[in-house]
Amino acid sequence: MTTLLFCMAGFLVFFMACGFAMLEGGLVRSKNVTMQMTKNIALYSIAAIMYWLMGFNTMYPGDFNGYFAIGGPTVLDAVGVAAADAALDYASVGSDFFFQLVFVAATASIVSGALAERIKLWPFLAFVVVLTGVMYPISGSWQWGGGWLSEAGFSDFAGSTIVHSVGGWAALAGAIVLGPRIGKYSKDGKVIPIPGSNLALATLGTFILWLGWFGFNGGSQLAMGTVGDVSDVSRIFANTNMAAAAGAVTALILTQVMYKKPDLTMVLNGALAGLVSITAEPLAPTLFGALWIGAVGGVIVVFTVPLLDKLKIDDVVGAIPVHLCAGIWGTIAVIFYNSDASLTTQLLGIAAYGVFTFVGSLVLWFILKAVVGIRVGEEEEINGLDMSELGMEAYPEFSKS
Amino acid sequence: MTTLLFCMAGFLVFFMACGFAMLEGGLVRSKNVTMQMTKNIALYSIAAIMYWLMGFNTMYPGDFNGYFAIGGPTVLDAVGVAAADAALDYASVGSDFFFQLVFVAATASIVSGALAERIKLWPFLAFVVVLTGVMYPISGSWQWGGGWLSEAGFSDFAGSTIVHSVGGWAALAGAIVLGPRIGKYSKDGKVIPIPGSNLALATLGTFILWLGWFGFNGGSQLAMGTVGDVSDVSRIFANTNMAAAAGAVTALILTQVMYKKPDLTMVLNGALAGLVSITAEPLAPTLFGALWIGAVGGVIVVFTVPLLDKLKIDDVVGAIPVHLCAGIWGTIAVIFYNSDASLTTQLLGIAAYGVFTFVGSLVLWFILKAVVGIRVGEEEEINGLDMSELGMEAYPEFSKS
Amino acid sequence: MTTLLFCMAGFLVFFMACGFAMLEGGLVRSKNVTMQMTKNIALYSIAAIMYWLMGFNTMYPGDFNGYFAIGGPTVLDAVGVAAADAALDYASVGSDFFFQLVFVAATASIVSGALAERIKLWPFLAFVVVLTGVMYPISGSWQWGGGWLSEAGFSDFAGSTIVHSVGGWAALAGAIVLGPRIGKYSKDGKVIPIPGSNLALATLGTFILWLGWFGFNGGSQLAMGTVGDVSDVSRIFANTNMAAAAGAVTALILTQVMYKKPDLTMVLNGALAGLVSITAEPLAPTLFGALWIGAVGGVIVVFTVPLLDKLKIDDVVGAIPVHLCAGIWGTIAVIFYNSDASLTTQLLGIAAYGVFTFVGSLVLWFILKAVVGIRVGEEEEINGLDMSELGMEAYPEFSKS
Repeated sequence: MTTLLFCMAGFLVFFMACGFAMLEGGLVRSKNVTMQMTKNIALYSIAAIMYWLMGFNTMYPGDFNGYFAIGGPTVLDAVGVAAADAALDYASVGSDFFFQLVFVAATASIVSGALAERIKLWPFLAFVVVLTGVMYPISGSWQWGGGWLSEAGFSDFAGSTIVHSVGGWAALAGAIVLGPRIGKYSKDGKVIPIPGSNLALATLGTFILWLGWFGFNGGSQLAMGTVGDVSDVSRIFANTNMAAAAGAVTALILTQVMYKKPDLTMVLNGALAGLVSITAEPLAPTLFGALWIGAVGGVIVVFTVPLLDKLKIDDVVGAIPVHLCAGIWGTIAVIFYNSDASLTTQLLGIAAYGVFTFVGSLVLWFILKAVVGIRVGEEEEINGLDMSELGMEAYPEFSKS
Repeated sequence: MTTLLFCMAGFLVFFMACGFAMLEGGLVRSKNVTMQMTKNIALYSIAAIMYWLMGFNTMYPGDFNGYFAIGGPTVLDAVGVAAADAALDYASVGSDFFFQLVFVAATASIVSGALAERIKLWPFLAFVVVLTGVMYPISGSWQWGGGWLSEAGFSDFAGSTIVHSVGGWAALAGAIVLGPRIGKYSKDGKVIPIPGSNLALATLGTFILWLGWFGFNGGSQLAMGTVGDVSDVSRIFANTNMAAAAGAVTALILTQVMYKKPDLTMVLNGALAGLVSITAEPLAPTLFGALWIGAVGGVIVVFTVPLLDKLKIDDVVGAIPVHLCAGIWGTIAVIFYNSDASLTTQLLGIAAYGVFTFVGSLVLWFILKAVVGIRVGEEEEINGLDMSELGMEAYPEFSKS
Repeated sequence: MTTLLFCMAGFLVFFMACGFAMLEGGLVRSKNVTMQMTKNIALYSIAAIMYWLMGFNTMYPGDFNGYFAIGGPTVLDAVGVAAADAALDYASVGSDFFFQLVFVAATASIVSGALAERIKLWPFLAFVVVLTGVMYPISGSWQWGGGWLSEAGFSDFAGSTIVHSVGGWAALAGAIVLGPRIGKYSKDGKVIPIPGSNLALATLGTFILWLGWFGFNGGSQLAMGTVGDVSDVSRIFANTNMAAAAGAVTALILTQVMYKKPDLTMVLNGALAGLVSITAEPLAPTLFGALWIGAVGGVIVVFTVPLLDKLKIDDVVGAIPVHLCAGIWGTIAVIFYNSDASLTTQLLGIAAYGVFTFVGSLVLWFILKAVVGIRVGEEEEINGLDMSELGMEAYPEFSKS
């Protein structure tokens, strides 16, 4: 049953790769859409290969691997494994590998959104290779591999910190090293809004991510063998949905109050922030708990998006507010409903993942910048990456105004 | 197993919210797409909150609630509930709540499509609050809460009447109070077609709805504990699919014969009408039964769309023909394959839901119109709701012809 | 459990109909998008009806059907079938029918992509009637109906040959009879690229197909009653995903090396080719096996797309390289990991399906051409099928450059 849960949840989380692609494709300008699609399908594919090659066995050390050892490629259970030989107390390697792999891909997707419209393809993919093959598996092993943070009592059910804020830290480091898009900040310090080219596509992406999150959080129950487990999965579904709804409604009301006009992109990011917020503990809260935890996520997005702009950190899709800021909040919020979690340990975990990922990413981005360069030329950026880097427009027939 | 069914079916039905958004976003003009996206994600989120706050416990009275009493917020099963304490004869509260919640959201989505391109955001959302928190739960309790219609022998398996025609009645009342879009009917009574802006998006939405319907009808088996139940779920899948296919093919052939040119929007609505038609009884019919019931649904759409236009009722996406007219048909069609259903009782149920929802909605729309106004100004409507109400275009870069 | 697997896998594979529609809708020019949507929803619907009317019982002969006899319509299991009466060693008829039906629809979808932008609607649908009601069921029965190829030891787990290359052969025959689009090949033999109108949509379609493939291959395990079966399904998931990833990365790298610019449409088709390649044997290979088998699929796409152009066979979406060429490769690749398969038998099966489908399709296309004509007029083609055949544009408001 647990294997079945992993397969079901796995295909839902796989579909999040599509959700990220559509969300990001909708929020960039039309001259960069082909590149954004290319990056997203490539990063998922690379994550799949790297996580097989070294990630899975780094994160979940088997009998012959040391703690930090880079493991050999993942080996699946035998075909038609007999019941007696199966790891009956858990799931098959295939389902576990597949389920963990779609998580690591989500981390990489977060980075691609923040750095859109100006980063070169291949240096970005090189970053993805290291992130999914080395960095994420190492830090993931601290908690989900049964490492020191797990022993210290850190609690992060489905990865507000381990997946989302890790993606957010990597994105933040990249955004700093890369610098803002041309024209985003005027010389006198004003922020110039650059609207997304296709909000229907962005909405589609958000709904797909919301759908995938049922797999993301539900599958993280990691068990479905008993009545209690199945009931818990359903509790997670209800809470996950409530947090997203609360994040969306909060962003809707806040933007109406603050700017007199509701802002769809904020509503979409509010829903996603609600989802990230509940990810660290989607099981224990009541529905009211999920509601207010998600609502705070929505508040965080509405206030941190302009904050980043003040710092002149250009995050194209709002990935840092959604995944990093709401991810930190969600990890802290665990203490309100899970009595086993302590604020100190939660902060320790947040700090450990933050320092490791941010510093590691910063170093990696600087190396990439020094060695091959990570940013396209000014002319290429103005003409759009699609024509200058790929020679292929996403919407070649629609004339641009 | 039933809990598992509810979770699986629940995420499929959740995705219908996305399907409605895409269908409606594709059928409105590009100047109203951002608004349509905003309405759809907001209505789903509001439905989730209202159904938790009062809807679920109104519809399914627990031990401490009177019949019409507005219940307190929904409380989930305990975490890790022991098998002995679980409601083993049914599903967990979390799964049941989640599954019912996605149904109520579908009802609200139906309304948003019909009233597109001219209604104000907040009055629409106020209507959604009452519809999902009060009206739908009260009328839903008559049948699914074990109320008087259930006792009278009314039969509506997955909600041709309870969900779809209720949404259709609420939409019809709104369309009448709101009036048609500017330019839809010329002064000499001609109908001026207003084509949708993105038929690829509308087709995507239709496919997503079709997918979600497997959850909608399949999950309404409400049980998956025995071989017979699982076999029944598969029977429902096959019938649901057949009815949709028959509705689509019928609309394709009819529009070819009547207008000499197949009409894609009619084909899409034909598929949806087939789905609505089979929803009241997806289990008992043979595949041939599903075929002709769905085909009649397709016929209904092709003939009622122009009929509404004659009455100058402007339904932007065809929601009333699809959900109300085919919903009534589907509820009547139950008698052909379910010997427990009688025509009298089916008509009684249709009338009860119709009178309650139509009158209730009419009153509510008039109150909203009198108190805050429900329609945007003429200039706002002509400029499009996106710029005038939200200040954000869905496709800002594509020049309009 | 097997019935449950078929239902789950069935809705995933159903969604592939949507994936094909979006992929094809994104790769044709905007003037043909409405037609492509119409064809895709119509072909799925027709396949559903034809497969019920004669296909299923032709392919899986019951007690009263001879081998090639055209069976009567499919009859489902009784409602609430008792455990004792159920075919407990297999799945319910409803689930089996539904699962097989979505496969046959995939075959027809392959054809619609290759012949886009110039074929008439009704002759195309007439071809679909014969393909899904007669040709596919007859040839399918050779293997999956327990016919002579199955007895000869041919091995094709989920249909690299039976579904994909059959679709590819039918498409190839059609592309030859139909001829290339006006303007695709200049008089001096040059190939003139005709870019797709919406690469975001094409990417969406690819992701949806990838998602659906978990059902396509996973469901083809055809059993989920034991621990070994569930473990096998998860193994299939992991391998399917790996092959797709390898195909995508291979196409990415190859197009970078060969053309100096990565080509998104090649990457999308590379992923699909990887999926087709692993479809004949997604269970037995190791993850490394899935990787290299999928990678070869990616190589095949990159080299056969220009090859077809040299032969002046105009395949709009690359369906022939992806489904026919990679399908043949996948069927051969079975011998590397499945010791029961022999190269001779695999080649025999490939040849049998190829000759039967290609010759049968060729005859059928010629008959259709002679009797009703299969190609729109020159003016209609230049103006686009949407306005000339359907009178309805997909994107009426976006001015064309």
